Amino acid sequence: MSESLKVISGSDDIAALMHDIGRRARAAARALAITPEGIKTQALNEAAAALRANKAAILAANAEDVAEARRNGQAASYIDRLALDESRVEAIAASVEAVAALPDPVGRTLATFTRPNGLVIERVATPLGVVGVIFESRPNVTADAGALCLKAGNAAILRTGSDSFRSASAIAAAMAFGITAAGLPAEAMQLVPTREREAVGLMLGGLGGNLDVIVPRGGKSLVARVQAEARVPVFAHLDGICHVYVHAAADLAMAQTVVLNAKMRRTGICGAAETLLVDRACAATHLAPLVTMLLDAGCAVRGDAATQAVDARVTPASEEDWRTEYLDAIIAVRVVDGLDDAMAHIDTYGSHHTESILTEDAAAAARFLAEVDSAIVVHNASTQFADGGEFGFGAEIGIATGRMHARGPVGVEQLTSFNYRVHGSGQTRP
Amino acid sequence: MSESLKVISGSDDIAALMHDIGRRARAAARALAITPEGIKTQALNEAAAALRANKAAILAANAEDVAEARRNGQAASYIDRLALDESRVEAIAASVEAVAALPDPVGRTLATFTRPNGLVIERVATPLGVVGVIFESRPNVTADAGALCLKAGNAAILRTGSDSFRSASAIAAAMAFGITAAGLPAEAMQLVPTREREAVGLMLGGLGGNLDVIVPRGGKSLVARVQAEARVPVFAHLDGICHVYVHAAADLAMAQTVVLNAKMRRTGICGAAETLLVDRACAATHLAPLVTMLLDAGCAVRGDAATQAVDARVTPASEEDWRTEYLDAIIAVRVVDGLDDAMAHIDTYGSHHTESILTEDAAAAARFLAEVDSAIVVHNASTQFADGGEFGFGAEIGIATGRMHARGPVGVEQLTSFNYRVHGSGQTRP
Repeated sequence: MSESLKVISGSDDIAALMHDIGRRARAAARALAITPEGIKTQALNEAAAALRANKAAILAANAEDVAEARRNGQAASYIDRLALDESRVEAIAASVEAVAALPDPVGRTLATFTRPNGLVIERVATPLGVVGVIFESRPNVTADAGALCLKAGNAAILRTGSDSFRSASAIAAAMAFGITAAGLPAEAMQLVPTREREAVGLMLGGLGGNLDVIVPRGGKSLVARVQAEARVPVFAHLDGICHVYVHAAADLAMAQTVVLNAKMRRTGICGAAETLLVDRACAATHLAPLVTMLLDAGCAVRGDAATQAVDARVTPASEEDWRTEYLDAIIAVRVVDGLDDAMAHIDTYGSHHTESILTEDAAAAARFLAEVDSAIVVHNASTQFADGGEFGFGAEIGIATGRMHARGPVGVEQLTSFNYRVHGSGQTRP
Repeated sequence: MSESLKVISGSDDIAALMHDIGRRARAAARALAITPEGIKTQALNEAAAALRANKAAILAANAEDVAEARRNGQAASYIDRLALDESRVEAIAASVEAVAALPDPVGRTLATFTRPNGLVIERVATPLGVVGVIFESRPNVTADAGALCLKAGNAAILRTGSDSFRSASAIAAAMAFGITAAGLPAEAMQLVPTREREAVGLMLGGLGGNLDVIVPRGGKSLVARVQAEARVPVFAHLDGICHVYVHAAADLAMAQTVVLNAKMRRTGICGAAETLLVDRACAATHLAPLVTMLLDAGCAVRGDAATQAVDARVTPASEEDWRTEYLDAIIAVRVVDGLDDAMAHIDTYGSHHTESILTEDAAAAARFLAEVDSAIVVHNASTQFADGGEFGFGAEIGIATGRMHARGPVGVEQLTSFNYRVHGSGQTRP
């Protein structure tokens, strides 16, 4: 890897470089598609070992990135996402091993049907092909996303943010060492070896048919650009405006526990609740305890008139608040007129990510789960379960809110496609 | 429907019209997504009845289309695709009823997993949303594609070719009558009420987010344009360059039967074989009988040197022949050096549609089925089984060769998405 990290510039050079990366990725994908599970597992375990063995080099590269980011005046939270230490490198290696230990998603028989003419038709999971991952400052994405792609038999083209270029390069070099040690082509996982921004545009264009899907990992502006410009499918969510609806028949104690967790466990993740809807039928008993609890926990509350009446600390919610993903200790609270009004609010203002209803009324829960058009709909549990690990997928490359192919947490199974395998004994079609 | 069939022209008008169609489709899709199976079934059965009841109007409209096509000098084969008669209208009605009788693909539980914390997570099939269908001269597509979309809970936006505009309009009017008779919104199935070509470009642009997927139904130039320009996912195949590989261990009698069927049963369908690969190890015994059989059946054979040596009627195959979908009684024949050479040929020249291996060697068949990257791979049966009906899907809207979401025959199940429904009892995330 390292010899290709020379400075590359000039549009022609970048285009040639990127298309060459695409062609190499396609060739590697063909090899990966028929690689036995044991070799993929070995490659990832060797990669984890190489990450540990190269810890010093990775930390040295990261120190340069961090120093540059400081010189550029980046905020402390940004530096925190960028900075590695020994325990973070160990965590990266461990998560690569965790992916290695997952069941192979390729080759699963998804369905089998026997036809009256004796044909046996199987639908079998296959890799998707070449996955492009465009990320920002978190260098661990290099290893995490690369490992998930490889486990699913896909070649990965990884594009890191400029600020973590040295860290990502050092991690990618270690991964490549492990991958080639297992006999797989180094091109199974390629880090784009240039900081030139033009490379992103070329990836969004699909690299001449050699890029099958793009996964953006980063802030809203990155996701918005990828969704607007990509000529290939995108697995992503733009917003996570998640709602908790406290229905008329909600148990107050459960509602308090779940609402607090949904909002405050971690406020910066996409599954954090951003809007609380309280049914007017239980507002007299449930609204004040919920709002007071949130305020006392350090959460700012922006509410409608009914909510403002509950506590002087509540500030007025504007129309814009219902559309805002705060990713912070802020929540918008509204009183709604029953289940239909709650679902209408979610349909109007939501982002089709994750919504939860709290109720002891099974019929109301059934309607909410059947009718709310979000990737994840939840009854009597926290929205913060919107996570591939919590779903049992082992790990996720992200959460998708589109309706095509992958929806919800995107784990290794969602990084596969399928084909049909027809077993005959000489059948011809009449 | 009929009142909207006035002449519409001017770019602003067309853009406004199409975006309005998109918004109405999205609203209808929301209603369809939660429509019970019985209502959808009733709507389709009412639509079939309306098609029969309006047979005279449909045939009169079709007669005008046919007259115009004749005036425009269209070929006889084109007129045949366009022309309807009583039995064809009856067949259209019957196929709408057949779709009505299929199991509802929406609401199926695709997977269920119980987590250690007691959460029960279901993956449940949901509609895709709004499906755009762009087709050419076959007016029956209006009913067939519209019925499949509705069965899967999707709103459909149907764009017919200019030459079948009157026929498609009459069919759409009958369908709308049935749909509204069942209480569903007429916008569940909208025919684009203008012949202006600009409408196609607007659909390819996605109608401001109100079109989720496009299915082109027609010739290669239509599919190529849609694939090149669409900003939304496309379910399609550009080519069906299907291969039959007669392996060294093929049974000659079976090979003759299957090859004849794969090539000659119907030469104009996408699953028809276009290239025959014969293993050098059995060429001495198998090549001549297969080639002679095809020639005697009226099939032109274009072959490599070994094939030309077999029969004077064989003409030389050029490099271009290996890449050609003849859709006619023509086949390209090549002798290959074993399984790897056959798979390399398919990978180089194929279209990832359907390929068949004929062999009594189970290990060779297993490798072919596992390693050939096509939507459908077949052992010891005809490639002409590449069809949703033959797969047991009831009907298909087309065959897709992309790896995203739908691959192979696209039936009602493939016109669905899914979401996750999480059943809790107060769980919070640690």
